[in-house]
Amino acid sequence: MKPLIGRCIRYENGKLELLDQQLLPDQEIWIEITQVAEMVEAIYQLKVRGAPAIGVAAALMIAKYAEGGATADQIVAAAQQLNQARPTAVNLMVAMDRLVLTQPQERLTPAFLSAEAEKIFEEDVALCRQLGENGAALIQDGDRILHHCNTGGLATAGIGTALGVIQTAHEQGKNIHVYIDETRPLLQGGRLTAWECGKLGIPHTIICDNMAAVLMRDGKINKVFLGSDRVAANGDFANKIGTYNVAVLAQYHGVAFYPVAPYTTIDRHCPNGAAIPIEERKPEEVRGVFGSFGSVRWAPATSGVYNPAFDVTPAALITKFVFNHGVFGPDELKAGKHLHW
Amino acid sequence: MKPLIGRCIRYENGKLELLDQQLLPDQEIWIEITQVAEMVEAIYQLKVRGAPAIGVAAALMIAKYAEGGATADQIVAAAQQLNQARPTAVNLMVAMDRLVLTQPQERLTPAFLSAEAEKIFEEDVALCRQLGENGAALIQDGDRILHHCNTGGLATAGIGTALGVIQTAHEQGKNIHVYIDETRPLLQGGRLTAWECGKLGIPHTIICDNMAAVLMRDGKINKVFLGSDRVAANGDFANKIGTYNVAVLAQYHGVAFYPVAPYTTIDRHCPNGAAIPIEERKPEEVRGVFGSFGSVRWAPATSGVYNPAFDVTPAALITKFVFNHGVFGPDELKAGKHLHW
Repeated sequence: MKPLIGRCIRYENGKLELLDQQLLPDQEIWIEITQVAEMVEAIYQLKVRGAPAIGVAAALMIAKYAEGGATADQIVAAAQQLNQARPTAVNLMVAMDRLVLTQPQERLTPAFLSAEAEKIFEEDVALCRQLGENGAALIQDGDRILHHCNTGGLATAGIGTALGVIQTAHEQGKNIHVYIDETRPLLQGGRLTAWECGKLGIPHTIICDNMAAVLMRDGKINKVFLGSDRVAANGDFANKIGTYNVAVLAQYHGVAFYPVAPYTTIDRHCPNGAAIPIEERKPEEVRGVFGSFGSVRWAPATSGVYNPAFDVTPAALITKFVFNHGVFGPDELKAGKHLHW
Repeated sequence: MKPLIGRCIRYENGKLELLDQQLLPDQEIWIEITQVAEMVEAIYQLKVRGAPAIGVAAALMIAKYAEGGATADQIVAAAQQLNQARPTAVNLMVAMDRLVLTQPQERLTPAFLSAEAEKIFEEDVALCRQLGENGAALIQDGDRILHHCNTGGLATAGIGTALGVIQTAHEQGKNIHVYIDETRPLLQGGRLTAWECGKLGIPHTIICDNMAAVLMRDGKINKVFLGSDRVAANGDFANKIGTYNVAVLAQYHGVAFYPVAPYTTIDRHCPNGAAIPIEERKPEEVRGVFGSFGSVRWAPATSGVYNPAFDVTPAALITKFVFNHGVFGPDELKAGKHLHW
């Protein structure tokens, strides 16, 4: 493969590396990934995260594996193994299907897989730019935007989805301020989005997830931009836990609510939100926090915990869904306009 | 003073002690308080917290100070100093006014102050029991209750306010389950309410604050009980940050929303929620967590933070406000029924 350089994934001279997102914001350390099992573990441990970035990273892993001499059978097994690493994000499955699982065995050559993985990377970069343009058209000077989780260059091969929209508006010279939901339990907002906004010079304020409501009531937040991990055929979508809460708050306060996602996030075989599987993660994540920044537990070890990684927001709560191929309201989503690209 | 024993405050043989709530749930350590400045610091550092408990602890401090030989001038100065420790909780001011600041100087004797501080303690115990009875009447077998922050025996001299209601329903043999908002940033739910529920044998599940919305939508939460730090004359009330978020979610999902508070929490001089001062706390609390369980920071040290300790919920979002002297809906609150006791 040719050199491919993103904010969190890079491939150069046969070396596939990930920026270890568990070490951010205090340490910026790239880790080399040489084995499929290492990539599966990196995905599960959220060293690489964000639905598009996971798909791209898995695709580069497959290409590297093929270049290293893996047989077609080994490549199919690897694609299946990678597919299991995160059950909710559809991009991973789309990437593995496109690259491997819907291909005839004779196509699973280093030449084909490398060219296709390059395309997956470069398409993601282009998709992010298009999302940025489409979404930034909805942002006016003076907007105060709520953002949930992380959707930037750390979640994609390019500038990101919702945060790419914010970056684009900022680059267009619009005077905006971003309120960043810290996004418990894994703190992707407080750790990663805050780090990216700092790097990009975008004015921002970190809040706990339970503070957005009063900011909306007080008129200090007037728009919401966030990502999506999977969009159903009817426009319902799954995203980081807490997204549905934000959607209800936005509706109640008359604040515009804009999810942003590339077409690769759409699962046309999924009829509605109820059909999206929701990954539940381990209770330790809620009983405390742990990461390279340290590990603490504050809750009783014996208390039960509920820890869904995602939730589903119905299409009816969406003001406009920003896709690369268009911007659609609830009626257009219901009519399936987002399914054509 | 005679011996006064609560779950978090005790006075015996001239020794005034607080259960250090910053060390819970893993360590149960009582600390002796001998100086006014130590009590101010204990309140500010949340070693003692919860609006009623703060008022009681400050009252016992004043009595102990008088018993130790403080002059009337010193007692007035101490009451003013204690008053400043937390600006939102009205109970502290009510207790200091009643005990000291509205009294003629000649009354500020050890005999009067001790008898009055005992009364403040014992009245709080009785108020909690009454709140428990009034609130438990609203709980049915099978209810799944959301609770925010901590309002139990760690927040009062007695069994608590909202958590006292839950304890009473549990003692009445009702089959209930409590979902505990962890309550960022200071985690009073995940640390303290979970600890109390465990001690009391009440079935419970800890959640992050952004998870209640989906539980309400899925019918897994059907009632909300939480406390109040100050109630305005029109029924608006201030409580732990995140309360307003819960109120909006409850309204949207048709879930009953019951704040619980003793009459001492009512500030009849405060016309409405907009007049309640909201304490803002330091940014470090949002950039990470710290306590006896450890200290970690995950957010960039350079990122700005918004950290209000409380928010205000309008009376219109209340199903019934549970007081010791009655249970009132929004129309009754508007008519000022809660102002008569």
